[in-house]
Amino acid sequence: MKKHLLIILTIVLSVFVSSCSQNCKKGSGYTIKDNTIVFDEPERIEGQKSVLQLAVDPIPVVRIGFIGLGMRGYSAVARISHIEGVEFKALCDLTQEHVDFVNKHVIEPKKLPKCAEYVGEDEWKKLCERDDIDLVYICSDWATHVPMAVYAMQHGKHVAIEVPAATSVEECWQLVDVAEQTQRHCMMLENCCYDFFELTCLNMAQQGLFGEVIHAQGAYIHNLEDYWTRYHNNWRLDFNQKHAGDVYPTHGLGPVCQVLNIHRGDKMDYLVSMSTPSINGLKIAKEQMGVDTFANGDMTSTLIKTNKGKTILIQHNVYTPRPYDRLYQLTGTEGFANKYPIEGFTLRNKNVSSNIIRDHEKLDEHSFVSNEVRDSLMMAYKHPIAKDIEEKAKQVGGHGGMDFIMDYRLIYCLQNGLPLDQDVYDAAEWSCLGELTAASIENNGMPVKFPDFTRGEWNKVKGYKHAVKN
Amino acid sequence: MKKHLLIILTIVLSVFVSSCSQNCKKGSGYTIKDNTIVFDEPERIEGQKSVLQLAVDPIPVVRIGFIGLGMRGYSAVARISHIEGVEFKALCDLTQEHVDFVNKHVIEPKKLPKCAEYVGEDEWKKLCERDDIDLVYICSDWATHVPMAVYAMQHGKHVAIEVPAATSVEECWQLVDVAEQTQRHCMMLENCCYDFFELTCLNMAQQGLFGEVIHAQGAYIHNLEDYWTRYHNNWRLDFNQKHAGDVYPTHGLGPVCQVLNIHRGDKMDYLVSMSTPSINGLKIAKEQMGVDTFANGDMTSTLIKTNKGKTILIQHNVYTPRPYDRLYQLTGTEGFANKYPIEGFTLRNKNVSSNIIRDHEKLDEHSFVSNEVRDSLMMAYKHPIAKDIEEKAKQVGGHGGMDFIMDYRLIYCLQNGLPLDQDVYDAAEWSCLGELTAASIENNGMPVKFPDFTRGEWNKVKGYKHAVKN
Repeated sequence: MKKHLLIILTIVLSVFVSSCSQNCKKGSGYTIKDNTIVFDEPERIEGQKSVLQLAVDPIPVVRIGFIGLGMRGYSAVARISHIEGVEFKALCDLTQEHVDFVNKHVIEPKKLPKCAEYVGEDEWKKLCERDDIDLVYICSDWATHVPMAVYAMQHGKHVAIEVPAATSVEECWQLVDVAEQTQRHCMMLENCCYDFFELTCLNMAQQGLFGEVIHAQGAYIHNLEDYWTRYHNNWRLDFNQKHAGDVYPTHGLGPVCQVLNIHRGDKMDYLVSMSTPSINGLKIAKEQMGVDTFANGDMTSTLIKTNKGKTILIQHNVYTPRPYDRLYQLTGTEGFANKYPIEGFTLRNKNVSSNIIRDHEKLDEHSFVSNEVRDSLMMAYKHPIAKDIEEKAKQVGGHGGMDFIMDYRLIYCLQNGLPLDQDVYDAAEWSCLGELTAASIENNGMPVKFPDFTRGEWNKVKGYKHAVKN
Repeated sequence: MKKHLLIILTIVLSVFVSSCSQNCKKGSGYTIKDNTIVFDEPERIEGQKSVLQLAVDPIPVVRIGFIGLGMRGYSAVARISHIEGVEFKALCDLTQEHVDFVNKHVIEPKKLPKCAEYVGEDEWKKLCERDDIDLVYICSDWATHVPMAVYAMQHGKHVAIEVPAATSVEECWQLVDVAEQTQRHCMMLENCCYDFFELTCLNMAQQGLFGEVIHAQGAYIHNLEDYWTRYHNNWRLDFNQKHAGDVYPTHGLGPVCQVLNIHRGDKMDYLVSMSTPSINGLKIAKEQMGVDTFANGDMTSTLIKTNKGKTILIQHNVYTPRPYDRLYQLTGTEGFANKYPIEGFTLRNKNVSSNIIRDHEKLDEHSFVSNEVRDSLMMAYKHPIAKDIEEKAKQVGGHGGMDFIMDYRLIYCLQNGLPLDQDVYDAAEWSCLGELTAASIENNGMPVKFPDFTRGEWNKVKGYKHAVKN
């Protein structure tokens, strides 16, 4: 009898182990369940509450401290100096040189009051601890975004963070939790949401010109060969060398998530991702870092499925000779928009007003509209938030003006006590793609479930909107 | 003790059942194993042998019987009438009208000998049974491709089949098995492999201009709104109404598989696929068929991973207003080619001969080459098989000439006893996407393993080649 028991127990154990190796495989923070990778979703702790549609008291004059004044940071200071109702209080960087550069090219020429200066490794903490700052604007390397944002929010500041806001799912939860605990704004600075073509398409989509948008695309395809050496301490190549997946997904994902009303009536349910081997990335890393491995594939492609069944394609390639391409594209039941390599629309006749399309310009549902019709559409459907500020934006610049519109909107919403255009859930949803895609790639294209960072509230707000004062 | 045994047995059973529901789920012809959908791969039966690189005795005059003379069939007869060394022996269709049309517009004007005629449902069998035919050229509806091809091969004929060659994995195996049993050619008529841009890119890729091609794309994006009523008995809409997945994948997949040397040194390992809901498809089917469901999503996107780690993106959308787009694109470590909506190349300077690029035209690795350089490249790298026949092809036509080049190559290879450009394994690999993608879609994007139709011989031939006589 004992022998039988032993045999049975052995069977139990072996079946259990075999079952577990398929169904309960534990990766870094995830489990495999029903053939799907599921990341842990921590429960909301007591006293912490949602920041969906968060609005705080108006801040008529927004006092800003900047962390990171290198490539993106300097331009941010320069751009924001063109906005009324802001005060620059503090500048922080790893080097005095960057601080001096900002003083020389922005603060002094504009005769602005001198800012407090923080130079060195941990000096950003002192900036966050000041009591005369409303907004901390973070343009440091990716790895320090979350520690800085968390510390700033814990010291009562609103934060704006360069893209991607976070580099792992765990970091995404940190941003969400601390924003909810402190009821502070945490906006990722996804500038591509403000590019003129994307803004116009968003407006056209919201006005129904494309019918129901069923598929959307975005990407970051930008050969960085000439750029790798420009990052302090080689941080960017170093990060890519260590991380598989789409590590820079937000430029492609941001604009299409706004069109698809993500966590405003729909949500991203799961993704699958594939990468090519690393050939060019590895070659550069060998030369510049003396290493023999490179985790990030030269090209990464990801498919996402939303709760309403829509699909999204996102690509990443910063290694091979190709024209710059953000792949922005919307496929709707009634129309189509495409940005690269040429901007074009395809629309059904019945949906376009006769003010835009004259009789002799009947639309063909199989080709792009003529350049004249396209230009009329771009004028007629210019996004309301771009209308007043467009001329100034083009003058100030920053990727053709979109960076300025982004900064302008951030300050405008803070000044008027309005919800920001991008909330902390956007930051988390768009940034988490890095680790989710890596998990799918490492498991041969296995589907990965998106964490619901809103914790069940993704369907509460109906439709994406830019807030405006009454 | 008995009670303990019972408990243990219950545990064994429940764990086993739960394990099986995850790992051993049986669909139509497939099993889920290690989180992957695996289709049954039947063993090769005795006496049956590989047709890899199959060459048969030269057929100086190729005697042809045509089945299906509607949309594609008529044009095939018309095109092939321009080729030397062929004889038309028999014509078969469901209606006398189509046969008469071919007689009136091809046979009579060209004063060709009158063909035997077969009109009616099962008449194609009689055509296949004739003993004066070398090649049966099949342009019927998708559902009849395999029965006809199988019957023709079993009666000693070589076959050419319109795309897709087969509509299920099981049908793909039938084609492979019967071709191997009878040692007959079975070529799918994938005309897009012969388009000038694709042929030129294939040549450039083989000559190393793009470095290693790591990612490739293809699609069939063609709004068929105006076409649905043209198919006999509504067969095409009817098929799509019943089938999820990328049901028409070969135009996109064929040209990129040739570039990536599929079953000539590499193979497709697995895919993942996602579809949008059906909105436009369902609307048309409601109107035309009075049905309330439509299995085929309006847009389907598929990612494929090859054994060498390359990735392929394939899309399908025949329902929404968009410009025609086959998405043809190659991303290499040294260069890039893109066909839609504009044809363009990006190449590194060092790889392009000074005959093509003069000093003042230094290439920029971040943009397309100028139109002048692109045109010089298109001339310099014109594919050898297109060179001699290009003028005639453009004259005869058929999608701008590519259909004629395809027919010309088929006849040329048969006349000279050479392996055909596309073998039965291509037909199976490219066509099987329909059922594989449906399985992935029905299982929330789960990876699906490609069957190895070569049964282990995918790495025997090194590199894709067009056969030419010495």
